Amino acid sequence: MVDPVSRRQFLRSAISMTAASYLPGGDFLAQAIRGPSSSWQGDDSSMHTSGWQNAGIEDLTKSPHAKLHQVPIRAVTIKSGFWGRRRQANVANSIPTMHDLLEANGRMNNFRRLVGKSSAQQTGPVYSDSDVYKWTEAVGFALQSGDLPELRQMTEKIIDDIVAVQQADGYLNTYYVEDRASLRMLPQTQSTGHELYNIGHMLQGAIAYYRATGERKLLDAGIRFVNDFLLPNYGPAPSKPIVSGHPEIEMALIELYRITADKRHLNLAGYILEGDARAPFPERRTIYMFSGTPFTSRTKLEGHAVRAMYACCGATDYYMETGDANYWRTLNTLWNDMVSTKMYVSGGVGSRSEGEAFGDAYELPNFRAYGESCAAIGNMMWNWRMLSATGDAKFTDVMERALYNGINSGMSLDGTLYCYRNPLAFDPSTGDKIRNPWYDTTCCPPNLERILASLPGYFYSTTSDGIYVHLYDNSELSWRLEDGTPIKIVQKTNYPWDGVVDISISPAKASQFTLHLRIPGWTEDAQVNVNGKALAGITPGQYLPLNRTWVSGDVVRLQIDMHPQMLIANSRVVEDTGRVALQRGPLVYCMEEMDQPAGTRLVDIAIDATHGSQPGFQSEFKPDVLDGVVVLRHDGVLFERSSGERLLYSQYVQRPQKTKRIPLLFIPYYAWANRQPSAMEVWTPLFRS
Amino acid sequence: MVDPVSRRQFLRSAISMTAASYLPGGDFLAQAIRGPSSSWQGDDSSMHTSGWQNAGIEDLTKSPHAKLHQVPIRAVTIKSGFWGRRRQANVANSIPTMHDLLEANGRMNNFRRLVGKSSAQQTGPVYSDSDVYKWTEAVGFALQSGDLPELRQMTEKIIDDIVAVQQADGYLNTYYVEDRASLRMLPQTQSTGHELYNIGHMLQGAIAYYRATGERKLLDAGIRFVNDFLLPNYGPAPSKPIVSGHPEIEMALIELYRITADKRHLNLAGYILEGDARAPFPERRTIYMFSGTPFTSRTKLEGHAVRAMYACCGATDYYMETGDANYWRTLNTLWNDMVSTKMYVSGGVGSRSEGEAFGDAYELPNFRAYGESCAAIGNMMWNWRMLSATGDAKFTDVMERALYNGINSGMSLDGTLYCYRNPLAFDPSTGDKIRNPWYDTTCCPPNLERILASLPGYFYSTTSDGIYVHLYDNSELSWRLEDGTPIKIVQKTNYPWDGVVDISISPAKASQFTLHLRIPGWTEDAQVNVNGKALAGITPGQYLPLNRTWVSGDVVRLQIDMHPQMLIANSRVVEDTGRVALQRGPLVYCMEEMDQPAGTRLVDIAIDATHGSQPGFQSEFKPDVLDGVVVLRHDGVLFERSSGERLLYSQYVQRPQKTKRIPLLFIPYYAWANRQPSAMEVWTPLFRS
Repeated sequence: MVDPVSRRQFLRSAISMTAASYLPGGDFLAQAIRGPSSSWQGDDSSMHTSGWQNAGIEDLTKSPHAKLHQVPIRAVTIKSGFWGRRRQANVANSIPTMHDLLEANGRMNNFRRLVGKSSAQQTGPVYSDSDVYKWTEAVGFALQSGDLPELRQMTEKIIDDIVAVQQADGYLNTYYVEDRASLRMLPQTQSTGHELYNIGHMLQGAIAYYRATGERKLLDAGIRFVNDFLLPNYGPAPSKPIVSGHPEIEMALIELYRITADKRHLNLAGYILEGDARAPFPERRTIYMFSGTPFTSRTKLEGHAVRAMYACCGATDYYMETGDANYWRTLNTLWNDMVSTKMYVSGGVGSRSEGEAFGDAYELPNFRAYGESCAAIGNMMWNWRMLSATGDAKFTDVMERALYNGINSGMSLDGTLYCYRNPLAFDPSTGDKIRNPWYDTTCCPPNLERILASLPGYFYSTTSDGIYVHLYDNSELSWRLEDGTPIKIVQKTNYPWDGVVDISISPAKASQFTLHLRIPGWTEDAQVNVNGKALAGITPGQYLPLNRTWVSGDVVRLQIDMHPQMLIANSRVVEDTGRVALQRGPLVYCMEEMDQPAGTRLVDIAIDATHGSQPGFQSEFKPDVLDGVVVLRHDGVLFERSSGERLLYSQYVQRPQKTKRIPLLFIPYYAWANRQPSAMEVWTPLFRS
Repeated sequence: MVDPVSRRQFLRSAISMTAASYLPGGDFLAQAIRGPSSSWQGDDSSMHTSGWQNAGIEDLTKSPHAKLHQVPIRAVTIKSGFWGRRRQANVANSIPTMHDLLEANGRMNNFRRLVGKSSAQQTGPVYSDSDVYKWTEAVGFALQSGDLPELRQMTEKIIDDIVAVQQADGYLNTYYVEDRASLRMLPQTQSTGHELYNIGHMLQGAIAYYRATGERKLLDAGIRFVNDFLLPNYGPAPSKPIVSGHPEIEMALIELYRITADKRHLNLAGYILEGDARAPFPERRTIYMFSGTPFTSRTKLEGHAVRAMYACCGATDYYMETGDANYWRTLNTLWNDMVSTKMYVSGGVGSRSEGEAFGDAYELPNFRAYGESCAAIGNMMWNWRMLSATGDAKFTDVMERALYNGINSGMSLDGTLYCYRNPLAFDPSTGDKIRNPWYDTTCCPPNLERILASLPGYFYSTTSDGIYVHLYDNSELSWRLEDGTPIKIVQKTNYPWDGVVDISISPAKASQFTLHLRIPGWTEDAQVNVNGKALAGITPGQYLPLNRTWVSGDVVRLQIDMHPQMLIANSRVVEDTGRVALQRGPLVYCMEEMDQPAGTRLVDIAIDATHGSQPGFQSEFKPDVLDGVVVLRHDGVLFERSSGERLLYSQYVQRPQKTKRIPLLFIPYYAWANRQPSAMEVWTPLFRS
């Protein structure tokens, strides 16, 4: 039916043809927007909001409690640079090879077999449909950055196969069919069967594809599921109860509401977030699911990390539509719990392998860190929503930390291998294979693909008084202010390798508005000048409001101090006792054993902090290392352990430790495990005496 | 049918009546042995070995590859002292309250209902039968130390209930009955259903009870299961395959062989240890089960820790009967793997909660330590067997470490609460309730009870050239040398609180033999004198062979240096970086927050090692604390953290840390969590600069 190899070759050549127009340009995007732009901020009869071309990742145009409004992915072109390279790998390698792997592993045939187009057996776990939907969403976001005709054609065939499976009553699932059909939507099935999780991803995929192409086929199927199957039968009494076994449908329903303006979609999300007492589950299960009890009764992050993050995304979306103060209080309680006690320095969350779960407060093991790629993505998506609600830079700091580190580590440099776990220390002798092309539970790979494909949508927001700049990279925005004035913003930078960002602001006409410039919270110092004139009062961890009458060609220069820093962890993080992590700019660093002097083992190495008053790092850009990275060097010591110290336990003897000075080399954490297997650690002992 | 309350009151009074004769005396034991003692080393027609009264925990009399031979539990009387108190709590509180809880939770009714003596439903997991059997084994061992008529009467009724359930074909199980009977002994059922695990515990319970009373009812039922049900139907082709889903049957079958001399019992154990390729399971499962592949193909400890330890026990027993060099090589490989990389300083093993499993090498988290009580017991039982095979004191050191710490912590001081997990650090704010009277999987409580009840059997061994002294406590041995000479050995000591042990050696006639005196490996120094004359060349970690002609009244004085020690862990144990554990004698110490100066938190405390060249501890016996313990005091420092340091991550600043001197108080680890909930830690930071 499908020949993955020839299909892949076909797609590769298709992509190499379009790559030239995809990456550097962007003019065709302005072209694409020009037409429909007249409908901006206006309702048309069928659509609640701004039209499919003009919606961001989320369409917050009409969300009463969103302070910021997102800009379309197509309005931002990320050019060659840090993310340009990653996004090139995503569209040229990741998305096509994942297509082939989904085919090879029967995920598309799961649909086709139900309409007689395949004789294959059902394969994969209950959530296998979501793999296809998440990949479709990645395609949708990619197409919002520019047409890729072959990819689009391939995807539309898959969409045809999907919608063909939908039943007359609106139900759509490839697992609860045939002899399993009787289990559909039973409370127990909902708690483990991922039926609505799958539909949540279907809706997100459909919306991304619709916003790329205007094509509603998958979106209409999703609306049929919601309107024909779900709403008439499920919900508050007397309907049958809903159990959100894996939160995801909540945020999808609210984004659907932003398209349909159908209040039932919002209300259904609210009902699900509240939990239905008619379908009680043991506390252990409601903790794990992060659902089934009122969201507003939660006081800490616990249970399955991805479930918790997706539930928080849905709850933030619900807050942005309703302004419910209980939701806002709970969201902030949970956020404080996370950033104060449960988040890795990488922005990864969910430290516990058992149950893929949040651990106790300060339970942040490094070797055993779970840090699922999907959970870091959920963390970014949640902080993006919290940022949209508030404009508070503390959320951007977390978002950027997760993006550059705990998410970015999840995909290999060439875009074909993925981490499921993202540990902060690694010993290859355990036999763990950390990067793989495929997992039978393949949630993370297409999730990483959709994040990279959607990345332009995270760079800017508009607000009533102007525009926010969240992220820095070589890029170009072609959009307009909320008063309708077209504006172009060009960033020229070598960020994150360098802290200088030159930003040219070109409104179509001289306009007074505020440019909210993010000053990252991790920097010790930043300088800003406008048209060469230095400003005072720059505070890291805030948006710097630059209110003036901007005219085309105005240039803002941001200079962020990028000196490498040593971070310590709270003393309650027991595995980090006596250790430091290095960070330069937004990037967390690590050591791989292969980069240290021959024969030395990471376990015998410490950073030497005995000299001088401040750490002495040297930064050097190495174009040939790991696709080009800034490496850090620092003096280190090699402990010469006695034979007793090689034992598991030995007696402490108070004496100067025998050490030898050695040079140490650090690479960005995201780039680890891209060469031969090698021991790795983020938190390195500090030698002080 | 049974009224637990009145039964308990009845038993309590019965025990208080017998307690006087139970604890201090022991003369009645000599009486009990006198009769059958003439058969020692002689075969009688039906029995392979030395007669039921004279067998130790294991009867190694005829085991060709056992260097040491065990002495009967009844030959050793543990008098008032460290273990006397624990054993008093065991027999007065633990065994009777566990009886009532097993009743209250339906574990005995599971048997009775099958013969119409109860209308209760089946309750508990598949391994519930083993709870009753393990409790029976505890009773059997307790009765070997002296008669407890009411306990015996109660147990014989339970035994009647058990054997009544046995089917004509020999099968006996209360779970795979009625509509589950069709699942019996299917390979999949064997892998998870614990049928043979239950029978293994039944055999061990039956043997202990037989060796206490000469009563064979339960033993004969066990033999019927093996001879009538198992042997004719299961085993190498053409019989049906056996899968040892939870190893346990192996060591039980070999101990049965030592009673029956039926080679089929030994061979069946060997077959099971080899695994049957006709019942293949995924590697993940054979790792978890620590069975299903040839034992001799194992190269490291992994998978479920209790399963692994029990498999190692069975394999060591198999070695002692067969001398198979491949087994011996594998056993030593696994032992080295454990003590070099996978054992807590408490002697606990199985660090990983997920799968109750061994972790990777050096994966020894403290807060998240699993350290199941059963696994520490398995560790002790395995090392006891390795010691029996060799007479090598390195195994006694591990056995003692597990006994005094990781096992001993498993039972509350009053004997009514049990730990399932035995973490090495604890934060009560997690809500964990660490000591409980009952677990639905209640494997650990009766396991702890059987170990304490069997403890006298671990004190001595005989060998062709004399006698080994393994453990020290106020106690009396009445037994004989292997040449038949009766001998009495009396230990007078306050061990482990004090290092002086006076040992009087009284053979019935002057005899030349070797007294192998264990010099613990943890001490820095030990002195030994015989009749007041000091000996030279004492080496810790070895048995000191004292060969001479001993005459009644000879006295050996052993003085073991008990100075508290600070231990460091191998630098690869990341959670112990910069930390030390305290040990005094065989006891590992810990801090409970409630014992430190008011208002200080463990997380802000370190041991002050800035003064002098050696740690300055003060030891003090506190009779009113925790039933009487030696506490340790040491200078400490309290870190005054800056507000930044209270964050999850903050920038490292090179400056002297602000500290305040405070006194610290340490208690033995085994006694933790016997007062109000309080934070606890074994591994404490060391402040050196």
